[in-house]
Amino acid sequence: MNSLFELSPKVQEIKKVLTDFVEFECIPAEQVYHAQTKIGKDRWNYVPPVIEELKIKARKLGLWNFFLPKYYKEGPGFTNLEYAVLCEIIGRSHLAPEATNTAAPDTGNMEVLAKYGNEEQKEQWLKPLMEGKIRSAFAMTEPGVASSDATNIELSIVRDGDEYVLNGRKWWISGAGDPRCAVYVVMGKTDPKNKLIHKQQSIILVPANTKGITIVRPMMVFGYDDAPHGHMEIDFDNVRVPAKNIVLGEGRGFEIMQGRLGPGRIHHCMRSIGMAERALEYHILRLTDPKKRAFGKLLGEHGTAMDTVCQSRLEIDQARLLVLTAAARMDKEGPKKAMKEIAMAKVIVPQMTLNVLDRAIQVHGGAGVSQVFPLANMYAMMRTLRIADGPDEVHRRQIARDEMKRANTLRSHYERRAKL
Amino acid sequence: MNSLFELSPKVQEIKKVLTDFVEFECIPAEQVYHAQTKIGKDRWNYVPPVIEELKIKARKLGLWNFFLPKYYKEGPGFTNLEYAVLCEIIGRSHLAPEATNTAAPDTGNMEVLAKYGNEEQKEQWLKPLMEGKIRSAFAMTEPGVASSDATNIELSIVRDGDEYVLNGRKWWISGAGDPRCAVYVVMGKTDPKNKLIHKQQSIILVPANTKGITIVRPMMVFGYDDAPHGHMEIDFDNVRVPAKNIVLGEGRGFEIMQGRLGPGRIHHCMRSIGMAERALEYHILRLTDPKKRAFGKLLGEHGTAMDTVCQSRLEIDQARLLVLTAAARMDKEGPKKAMKEIAMAKVIVPQMTLNVLDRAIQVHGGAGVSQVFPLANMYAMMRTLRIADGPDEVHRRQIARDEMKRANTLRSHYERRAKL
Amino acid sequence: MNSLFELSPKVQEIKKVLTDFVEFECIPAEQVYHAQTKIGKDRWNYVPPVIEELKIKARKLGLWNFFLPKYYKEGPGFTNLEYAVLCEIIGRSHLAPEATNTAAPDTGNMEVLAKYGNEEQKEQWLKPLMEGKIRSAFAMTEPGVASSDATNIELSIVRDGDEYVLNGRKWWISGAGDPRCAVYVVMGKTDPKNKLIHKQQSIILVPANTKGITIVRPMMVFGYDDAPHGHMEIDFDNVRVPAKNIVLGEGRGFEIMQGRLGPGRIHHCMRSIGMAERALEYHILRLTDPKKRAFGKLLGEHGTAMDTVCQSRLEIDQARLLVLTAAARMDKEGPKKAMKEIAMAKVIVPQMTLNVLDRAIQVHGGAGVSQVFPLANMYAMMRTLRIADGPDEVHRRQIARDEMKRANTLRSHYERRAKL
Amino acid sequence: MNSLFELSPKVQEIKKVLTDFVEFECIPAEQVYHAQTKIGKDRWNYVPPVIEELKIKARKLGLWNFFLPKYYKEGPGFTNLEYAVLCEIIGRSHLAPEATNTAAPDTGNMEVLAKYGNEEQKEQWLKPLMEGKIRSAFAMTEPGVASSDATNIELSIVRDGDEYVLNGRKWWISGAGDPRCAVYVVMGKTDPKNKLIHKQQSIILVPANTKGITIVRPMMVFGYDDAPHGHMEIDFDNVRVPAKNIVLGEGRGFEIMQGRLGPGRIHHCMRSIGMAERALEYHILRLTDPKKRAFGKLLGEHGTAMDTVCQSRLEIDQARLLVLTAAARMDKEGPKKAMKEIAMAKVIVPQMTLNVLDRAIQVHGGAGVSQVFPLANMYAMMRTLRIADGPDEVHRRQIARDEMKRANTLRSHYERRAKL
Repeated sequence: MNSLFELSPKVQEIKKVLTDFVEFECIPAEQVYHAQTKIGKDRWNYVPPVIEELKIKARKLGLWNFFLPKYYKEGPGFTNLEYAVLCEIIGRSHLAPEATNTAAPDTGNMEVLAKYGNEEQKEQWLKPLMEGKIRSAFAMTEPGVASSDATNIELSIVRDGDEYVLNGRKWWISGAGDPRCAVYVVMGKTDPKNKLIHKQQSIILVPANTKGITIVRPMMVFGYDDAPHGHMEIDFDNVRVPAKNIVLGEGRGFEIMQGRLGPGRIHHCMRSIGMAERALEYHILRLTDPKKRAFGKLLGEHGTAMDTVCQSRLEIDQARLLVLTAAARMDKEGPKKAMKEIAMAKVIVPQMTLNVLDRAIQVHGGAGVSQVFPLANMYAMMRTLRIADGPDEVHRRQIARDEMKRANTLRSHYERRAKL
Repeated sequence: MNSLFELSPKVQEIKKVLTDFVEFECIPAEQVYHAQTKIGKDRWNYVPPVIEELKIKARKLGLWNFFLPKYYKEGPGFTNLEYAVLCEIIGRSHLAPEATNTAAPDTGNMEVLAKYGNEEQKEQWLKPLMEGKIRSAFAMTEPGVASSDATNIELSIVRDGDEYVLNGRKWWISGAGDPRCAVYVVMGKTDPKNKLIHKQQSIILVPANTKGITIVRPMMVFGYDDAPHGHMEIDFDNVRVPAKNIVLGEGRGFEIMQGRLGPGRIHHCMRSIGMAERALEYHILRLTDPKKRAFGKLLGEHGTAMDTVCQSRLEIDQARLLVLTAAARMDKEGPKKAMKEIAMAKVIVPQMTLNVLDRAIQVHGGAGVSQVFPLANMYAMMRTLRIADGPDEVHRRQIARDEMKRANTLRSHYERRAKL
Repeated sequence: MNSLFELSPKVQEIKKVLTDFVEFECIPAEQVYHAQTKIGKDRWNYVPPVIEELKIKARKLGLWNFFLPKYYKEGPGFTNLEYAVLCEIIGRSHLAPEATNTAAPDTGNMEVLAKYGNEEQKEQWLKPLMEGKIRSAFAMTEPGVASSDATNIELSIVRDGDEYVLNGRKWWISGAGDPRCAVYVVMGKTDPKNKLIHKQQSIILVPANTKGITIVRPMMVFGYDDAPHGHMEIDFDNVRVPAKNIVLGEGRGFEIMQGRLGPGRIHHCMRSIGMAERALEYHILRLTDPKKRAFGKLLGEHGTAMDTVCQSRLEIDQARLLVLTAAARMDKEGPKKAMKEIAMAKVIVPQMTLNVLDRAIQVHGGAGVSQVFPLANMYAMMRTLRIADGPDEVHRRQIARDEMKRANTLRSHYERRAKL
Repeated sequence: MNSLFELSPKVQEIKKVLTDFVEFECIPAEQVYHAQTKIGKDRWNYVPPVIEELKIKARKLGLWNFFLPKYYKEGPGFTNLEYAVLCEIIGRSHLAPEATNTAAPDTGNMEVLAKYGNEEQKEQWLKPLMEGKIRSAFAMTEPGVASSDATNIELSIVRDGDEYVLNGRKWWISGAGDPRCAVYVVMGKTDPKNKLIHKQQSIILVPANTKGITIVRPMMVFGYDDAPHGHMEIDFDNVRVPAKNIVLGEGRGFEIMQGRLGPGRIHHCMRSIGMAERALEYHILRLTDPKKRAFGKLLGEHGTAMDTVCQSRLEIDQARLLVLTAAARMDKEGPKKAMKEIAMAKVIVPQMTLNVLDRAIQVHGGAGVSQVFPLANMYAMMRTLRIADGPDEVHRRQIARDEMKRANTLRSHYERRAKL
């Protein structure tokens, strides 16, 4: 591993078990999963059985819920840094997160419930989620506004007696296609005229089977629909839920969302490192494949092809170090103080992974863009990460502003020096 | 247009008609086409009627077969440069090439037949192709070898009396999914042991309904199957065709392929410029969309967003100039002399178009990667162009070698100078 | 040359003569020039004789004043496009511009005088400049303000009877180090309170030996002072010049500057293409140098090294096409209409040339950054072109804004289409 | 600092003292140093007194010889990781390395003597070097061969009785211009016909005043000669030294060189991080300078300008993490095991620093490329680091090869998995 820090023997042991599970259970199950996925409308009504089998195995091996750091009583007791190391391995297979109950958006929703939910909410939703019995979705993005600015959201949440009534349209509700998805964590506005624009929003728990909810269509990512998980567009038409379903109270939505997104962003980054490493493995294998000789040489004997391996290694290792640093800072000073490190990882990692994937695709020729390798599918999913949870531009601006804040201190320092 | 050359009044007039046709017939028909495309296996048995309607309109307007330059008696009489200008407009809609009978791979196949076919072959295949009555496919790439080196292909073509017998596997046979596809132009080896490695190959015409042909599966491109056109994997198992179906004679395959690929590559580039321009239009519209304000400004009022428009303009215009130069050189000196210019365009244009598309996708957020805009689909198709017809690496090597050939002349020149 | 246009036989002939002159007279003279340049303060008092010898040769060969396009009676009668082709050759040697009397800043100053000067001013300054008898400088940039915004300049020009009095500080006054520099074209403010901020400026002609002028120091470019030409910082302390020295009248300074900069920018770009081509020649020669073998191969036999040649070729050819397009548009529609094309060339060409130079430097190892090859010196001079005559950022913003202006038209077009 | 590891209180304290010394002693002394540097030939005979004053201060503060890690009895007892943290601060000023006796090439030469020298050699050369009483140079690179491949060197070292006789030419002998430079560590060939090409070389200590040594010229770096330090070309003409001056024995040269270069490369990288941070400070100060407003805004209020700050931060932090990782691995497993990490830092850090400097230069306009700020000088010196101690290409190849070595293991792993 990295020479800058040490893993405890316990984590080293779990890492080994996890690696075997991902390499020899999850990855081989990927093709089974695709084969078991149905065609047409049935895609959304049926969960490939192999995933439930993997969950049983993972739980038996103690590979479960790692995402919830030791600062929560419900979690298995790892630091964020330890989870980062494990999560990279999980990221190698798209089945491993669900198999180990560390899949988005459930993880973020579980963190919200663990951190902000009351006991009743925890009992009703957190418990079955922690046990992998149900799944959940997070409904924030809306089709009609610029979602890079979270204050733009418009879904209305109006109190009516003991209930709240929701009206509006959401899209990119990941996981809402899954028949096991039981609850939506919905962000909307309870007080749209509040002059404090970060107090207008609230978050409320909406059972998926509530009347007035219509799944309009799955959003496609490039040509993939990611069924049965799905990224759904959903209409809320006079959807009524008990008033007690509000989380933390009216006007706390923005605050909860921020608490949710920080760790969520970094989890995506951790997994992406694993995906990049797997892509680099395919890349190396292709360059050394004796059947793929061109112009009398292995592909990797052409200097430029070999150099692409170097470039990917350079980019992966730097990006991983950013992710680990952000995780370590979260451990030492909490997620808020690590906002800049998280933003930096959020900007670098998806683009790095796309670069690594694109190079791997290129050396595979037609096979690279097709269903023969998982590279194109990974590329499509990764491309959304430059947009989801705040597009690159928003994070870049935050990083730049944070740097620019140093200007006054620097100016004093330089002026003092100039006087010497 | 560009100030370096003038278009004849005739071409200017046709350009205007063509622009209207693409903008107000083809582009609006795109959603109709997708809606008419069937689900499941029927995708491959049914052609959306809207495309045949467009063909009728285009032919009435005289927008037909522009691709075949005036050096062929069958063509409508344009230079390559003139076609480049028109083809950019055609490239704006993925329906326009077929609507105007300038779609790959038919165009390349028609050029092969026009240039190398005998009269019987022309009568049987070129004529209906020129009239848009049938479609065709080109079968070169194979799954088992490194296709970047065309000498690697292995499909065997063995003479047996009055017939040839084909055995082997091909994939990425674009257009072979279409029920109207009547003929495959197949490259294989008639003389695999010939020491002259460019004399081993032959090209033969194979009717699509010949016994022994099995369509194994459609190859997916980032989740898209491009039905009913399709990019098929096909098995040839003792496929027998009349000996007269060979083109130009045994051992001429490599030569024909090279004659075919040059213009084909540049046609792809021409269309790509149009696709890039359309993507830039979406980009500009999004940045100025009053509904998409973030942090109190239009997206385009953020400096970095506006700068992405500048970058795309810079890249598009430079790439277009390369394409036009290659076309003009083909007109002046023939395709062989223009090989370097074609290679340069082939390297630059797809990557440029991907860059332009990627920037456009980013400003559209989730809508950009989805079915809401055509950008992600364009991206996927364009990504294959860095691989098809020779991957970037092969063309880059050719360009570098061409430059390096100047070394001796330069050395003499510099030595002469040093003696002054 | 390029296949998109033809050169007249006359220009082709001159191009040949010019090429020989640059290759076998100017380039061999470069080392002579450096050897003749003095050390210490004498650097600024002495002009290496070889340059005057080259001027005599050039003039005899008819290689003189090409820069002034045929739209001026004083010029030799070439179009901007023809000059672009010739100017690329001139750009190959840093001595060739002065040798052919096409060196900045004289060319810009001569254009100003030809276009805006009255007969007396032309007689006094334009005539000897056109004959290469004196040199001149252009004084615009100031150390105390952000020079990317030309409205910021502060040097004051105050009318006092029959004279104007100048007070202020200028720097980067290129050519002011040369003992032959006889006149400064100075931009300052005659009306700093005018609400029309583009009417505050005037341009005035100041003899270099006027009292009150102090040359403060040469500005270094990286470690080069470019003596005896120089880029001087100059103090103007109550400098008095006759009122008749004003060009075109008070308040016309901004307008003149804009007329001056357009062609000037594109001339720099034209020359840069030639510099890039020369760098690529060194690059190729190094890669094929039999004495520079590493790890058992010529440098150019390493795949990645060869690929850098391809990359440079791709970038040079695209950039050249932009420059030629801008020149052709200036010919067809005048410099104002060509502002966008000029801006595009101004953004692309210096960065391209830096890239090409940097690659050439890298393959030369230590020799590349040193005095052994002209590459590092070229790099330093070229680096200033991303800043001079408007930094990249200003031109990029202009290009982006120009594109964004299409938004409304595009919107109508798309809306019309959506209704079909 | 970084959250992945902790510094001991002792190092934290020293870091504070060092920071004050660099910020308020070394940086203010830079202009004094330049003012004290002589003009013309005297540049090479005179050492600006301010540097010796700084050395006295540094030694009093205990800021001395940090470079020699605790694995040597002569060193002050820091780990490589601790030195990396301190060295970044030292790198902020080009005077600080010499002031703290941590300047190249002395550091590398001291490591060679400490590791491979015998007691007599240590007494004669290591002791005065450790005390800052003399300086030294390292003579490896030669003008006539491709120096990227160290086996190419040709200087001959021939045994003649009790002496060795040296003949050959070296260049880029950094520090040989300094009048205090007392000894050259010279690499040459004692056995040029040995079939083991890594056994041909030896390293020998040559007093600078030995007869037969001629300093031919200083090599310029982008116009800078870096006097009095200098990067000299030196002729060795029958230079005779005692046989006991050989280090470790004949044929050990390559081995010593490799032991020397590893740490030397990483020291350059450590310092570069500090240089990049200082450049970013200038960058931020310029963007917020109230006197540098353009188009009505601070430079930093233009979105694209602000984004360049973000980009530099992203690149610096990632590169620093690579450097720290390499240092930590050297501590844990020794320099040989850290070769890949060192190579990665060596590839990334100089290019990163050049990027950061180039962005800083651009926002400073003309001042950026000039003597007004240290940025251009830093750029020039940094540019040599992509060439010195092995050019990028060599390290990239090493990194790629190291990755490719995993191919067989990966293949077994993937094949095992495919069988599941």
